[in-house]
Amino acid sequence: MRSAAEAAPGFIHVPALRTLGSRFTLEGEEARYLARVVRAREREQVTASDGAGLVATLRIEQLKPALVLALESAREHPRPISARLLCGAPEGERGDWLVEKLGELGVTDFQPVESDRGRWPAGRDERWERLAVAALRQSRSAWRMAIHPATGLIDAMAAAREPVRWLADPEGEAASARSPGADSAAVAAIGPGSGFTEPERKALRGSGFEPVRLAASRLRTETAALAVAALWAASRSADGKSGAQA
Amino acid sequence: MRSAAEAAPGFIHVPALRTLGSRFTLEGEEARYLARVVRAREREQVTASDGAGLVATLRIEQLKPALVLALESAREHPRPISARLLCGAPEGERGDWLVEKLGELGVTDFQPVESDRGRWPAGRDERWERLAVAALRQSRSAWRMAIHPATGLIDAMAAAREPVRWLADPEGEAASARSPGADSAAVAAIGPGSGFTEPERKALRGSGFEPVRLAASRLRTETAALAVAALWAASRSADGKSGAQA
Repeated sequence: MRSAAEAAPGFIHVPALRTLGSRFTLEGEEARYLARVVRAREREQVTASDGAGLVATLRIEQLKPALVLALESAREHPRPISARLLCGAPEGERGDWLVEKLGELGVTDFQPVESDRGRWPAGRDERWERLAVAALRQSRSAWRMAIHPATGLIDAMAAAREPVRWLADPEGEAASARSPGADSAAVAAIGPGSGFTEPERKALRGSGFEPVRLAASRLRTETAALAVAALWAASRSADGKSGAQA
Repeated sequence: MRSAAEAAPGFIHVPALRTLGSRFTLEGEEARYLARVVRAREREQVTASDGAGLVATLRIEQLKPALVLALESAREHPRPISARLLCGAPEGERGDWLVEKLGELGVTDFQPVESDRGRWPAGRDERWERLAVAALRQSRSAWRMAIHPATGLIDAMAAAREPVRWLADPEGEAASARSPGADSAAVAAIGPGSGFTEPERKALRGSGFEPVRLAASRLRTETAALAVAALWAASRSADGKSGAQA
């Protein structure tokens, strides 16, 4: 899938980009990434994103002893249309790659949801942040997926403002008949490995979450989350290339 | 996602189902699965699929010392419309969960492709077969995904007879504008981690593979494969529930 990007410059995540000025020294993870993975050389260009809309073209002025970068140009990208997932805990160790894939497919908000039948394990925040940054690099995005702290379903529903609302449900209406369209903010709720309870489903339907079928067969939690993200990614790319690409 | 299925009986894969007669003893992996994972009890019903179209309802006559099952009814399901993926090698250890997810999403044929920029590691056949069986159980399918031996791109193209042909390509036409429809056999080619070479892309286009964009941003190999599978699963479920469900 990368053929078009091979000639593209290295891409790094610099959260403080907005405040660093026109010439700055970069340390830590992203500096190591540029040197060891990208193997960037002096005088080469590098693209940097702050994960919050700002994408800059930088020139490597010096590699050693410190990495010094000069700002050549910068551009603001509008916040993408919201694509939020309220996601119950999958079975086993499937959360990590789920975060990576959702970030890559352009989900804007990942909201782990504690529910009666599934609890998210603690202590993953730092790893998930790293995976979201890796997804931002991979997709060369201006915006990084926000990973929200795990919360109860009621709070998660209350925080979701998106008008298009899906409840992943093998008995629901076909997803292909309900595409949210490229301009609609959307949220989807995905049950944990053992499913939402009937009261939870009722609360979701009462909040306007409509049952939507993603495939002819039952899907695991993480597969359903990924299928929603893939469907939305396709419908959002129908308008042409995203402004979020560097 | 499982709420509708919680009351459903256990589901097992019995390749020899067609030849076993109306009462038989089951040993090995699936017998252990029934006893330890499903925790099935005597007199309970179990659903079995041979992964090649036959789905049967069985009754557990005896659990110990041997698992004895009696056939109550059986039904043939037509072969699903072909959904084939020619897939270059992803980076790192991403092949395993790719196989699991593609099986779950109803891909019928998984064809690993050796290409100039990516070689599949050897020695995965047995593990992949297990993952395809796990996906069959999860999706309660009549048909199991076929996993073909890795082959060169030329051979893989020659073996693909599907009329709808996609080449995953960030520069292609939007996937949402090119849905194959529920009744069309389809094949997609996904490049390895570093992408197809230009001669490979040319060969694919010459064989009718049309560049299709899956998302606004670049996707990793395994994410692209999964996105194709999710799009096809949604379009195929639009006609109503699959006949492949037990």
